Amino acid sequence: MFRDFNICIDTNFIFGRNVHQRVGEELKKTGIKTVLIHHDNGPFLYKDNLLEGIKEDLNNHGIQTFELGGVLPNPRLSLVYEGIELVRKKGISFILAIGGGSVIDSAKAIALGAVNDCDVWEFFYAGKAVESSLPVGVVLTYPATGSESSAVSVVNNVEKGEKLLVSSPVIRPKVVFMNPELTYSLPGFLTACGIVDMFSHICERYFTPEDEIGVIDRMAEGILKTLVEIGPKVLEEPSNYLYRAEIMWIGSIAHNNTVGVGRVQDWGTHEIGNELSAMYDTPHGATLSIIMGAWMKYVYEKKPGRFARYAHEIFDVPLDGKNTLEAAKEGIYCTETYFKSLGMPVSFGDFKLPTDHIEDMLDKIAFRGEDKSIGGIVRLNRADVRKIYEMAF
Amino acid sequence: MFRDFNICIDTNFIFGRNVHQRVGEELKKTGIKTVLIHHDNGPFLYKDNLLEGIKEDLNNHGIQTFELGGVLPNPRLSLVYEGIELVRKKGISFILAIGGGSVIDSAKAIALGAVNDCDVWEFFYAGKAVESSLPVGVVLTYPATGSESSAVSVVNNVEKGEKLLVSSPVIRPKVVFMNPELTYSLPGFLTACGIVDMFSHICERYFTPEDEIGVIDRMAEGILKTLVEIGPKVLEEPSNYLYRAEIMWIGSIAHNNTVGVGRVQDWGTHEIGNELSAMYDTPHGATLSIIMGAWMKYVYEKKPGRFARYAHEIFDVPLDGKNTLEAAKEGIYCTETYFKSLGMPVSFGDFKLPTDHIEDMLDKIAFRGEDKSIGGIVRLNRADVRKIYEMAF
Repeated sequence: MFRDFNICIDTNFIFGRNVHQRVGEELKKTGIKTVLIHHDNGPFLYKDNLLEGIKEDLNNHGIQTFELGGVLPNPRLSLVYEGIELVRKKGISFILAIGGGSVIDSAKAIALGAVNDCDVWEFFYAGKAVESSLPVGVVLTYPATGSESSAVSVVNNVEKGEKLLVSSPVIRPKVVFMNPELTYSLPGFLTACGIVDMFSHICERYFTPEDEIGVIDRMAEGILKTLVEIGPKVLEEPSNYLYRAEIMWIGSIAHNNTVGVGRVQDWGTHEIGNELSAMYDTPHGATLSIIMGAWMKYVYEKKPGRFARYAHEIFDVPLDGKNTLEAAKEGIYCTETYFKSLGMPVSFGDFKLPTDHIEDMLDKIAFRGEDKSIGGIVRLNRADVRKIYEMAF
Repeated sequence: MFRDFNICIDTNFIFGRNVHQRVGEELKKTGIKTVLIHHDNGPFLYKDNLLEGIKEDLNNHGIQTFELGGVLPNPRLSLVYEGIELVRKKGISFILAIGGGSVIDSAKAIALGAVNDCDVWEFFYAGKAVESSLPVGVVLTYPATGSESSAVSVVNNVEKGEKLLVSSPVIRPKVVFMNPELTYSLPGFLTACGIVDMFSHICERYFTPEDEIGVIDRMAEGILKTLVEIGPKVLEEPSNYLYRAEIMWIGSIAHNNTVGVGRVQDWGTHEIGNELSAMYDTPHGATLSIIMGAWMKYVYEKKPGRFARYAHEIFDVPLDGKNTLEAAKEGIYCTETYFKSLGMPVSFGDFKLPTDHIEDMLDKIAFRGEDKSIGGIVRLNRADVRKIYEMAF
């Protein structure tokens, strides 16, 4: 079937060489007068004068700038509160994130909290409906989460040990400046974490309970195939513009729902993986590469045809003379082999994670509905997820 | 390479069963008070009370409606002038197109002309820069041109015998209501014309002079493959929701540049075909099916690798044991066979078009640049286009 949907991806993508030099010009058009520049103090900010250059450019266009750095991976609610206070005190009307997913998610949460009287955490844990937010812009330096054009923000409440998300088109960034050259200096591990995240964003939409294969599936397959081809190449040639551009653009379309409309999605791998981040501060991409293979092995028998098709389309697993389950299993093996080729862990052991907090992590997962479960292609309850964790040891 | 680009597809897509009953609710949110309903008096408007139902719904939401019907295929400039006058006289602030590409293109031209003092035709023939327009909304009843989320309007100036386009993100519709059920009653020939148009919109972007194959190419291949699979099925089962939904969604993504960013595009087939519409009022889709094969046969030797890949990916032409040119030729043959399977003409003769106005049509084509040519994958001058017309006789 083709389920009803509503989508409006109203992000203005400005993509190419040197586009980070057009921030002032573009923001001036919107009439914005004061901007909070939000970042993580990463070394890239000081390379080629990136941060100072953008500040100067904004000032030259008559826009006053304030600055809040210090975003950590799995961005902290405490810094979000700090940002909200600063924005309110200074009357700031636009949040500009310079960075990757953590910085963008933190910026979205600040933008949301600044114009709402309640505690911003209510939008996360209590699912309070989002109606208004300040506009957010992005200078993307780390393609991974797709947050630059997604409707989602994930924030880590360290006090409560909760990593939760808010989702609303209202918080989708209004403009994103994407210069692939800014990503040349990204370390290999971070690049690979980003690729796994994109790969997973597509898979969470591709592994749907729907039976039919249609245009959305075929577009998703095209993106996955490109990631399989380009992933190892970009690690070999980190300053290749074409490879960096492909990866950067894929990061956005992997998560802005271009290949997610009209279907039930899954998100099991993300929900299960996120608890590793909350518990051990494990990088998001690594949690996904650790969990995805185990998740696949646990669920593929419920939808073997789709997994066999995945094996064939993405990894050229021949279907002739193989039964569907065999082909499906080979596709899972290829997925893990692909992650390993990117230097990514595919088990707790690979990343030296302890295995003695499983029940604590299970306590944190938001099992929902009458069947107290998560996931789309297969609904997974607490016992199922426990097995998936164990299969990933 | 991956060329610099800027894209913002800010159309709000509302897709699914009965979404045409939500027009009043959605427009009310925007604060709109007066709407011009623009249409072509087609029989579908009076089926199940569609037109009156939407009017009543708008009125019930406190929105005053005016009506202008009479749009013809290859929409006429004369009606656009009439619409502009009506909009100005009544102080209308939103144009709602109920229909397909012709109605939407006409609505865009009215919206553009209504807020600009100059003759609206200046935006078409003189390429005057577009800066402002009234907002346009669409209730889509005929998926084909993709105009419901494209930045383009094509209008026919009958007096001058010119069919020209204006392109600007400013005229992209702001909201589109897409209910596949409204297309069940579309005649087979119109359905097939729409499918050819979508197929061509992808090909004009896929047949790029760029050498590399990347994510955009693979997504385009996924869409083309779906069209090849679904096209004959939807003609067989015109009331199949899934097939109609696939076709409807493909129509939009085929032309809103989802698979056009970062590359030089071609548009030769469209430019050559459009003169058949201007000269003989031939349906747009038929002009494309008549010209595309001839265009391919004329240019494929300049980019045989891409045409061979197309043959393999879209039509499963085996590449083993075949040289590239042979495979490419077979892909062209498959394309024409596919069009024929949809009941579409692939030559002037198939559609009983006269062949004695070729020089008049060549006179109208806007050959550009130092080399006085059109097209992207291969630049085509007047002599080249003459040969393409002749190859299509």
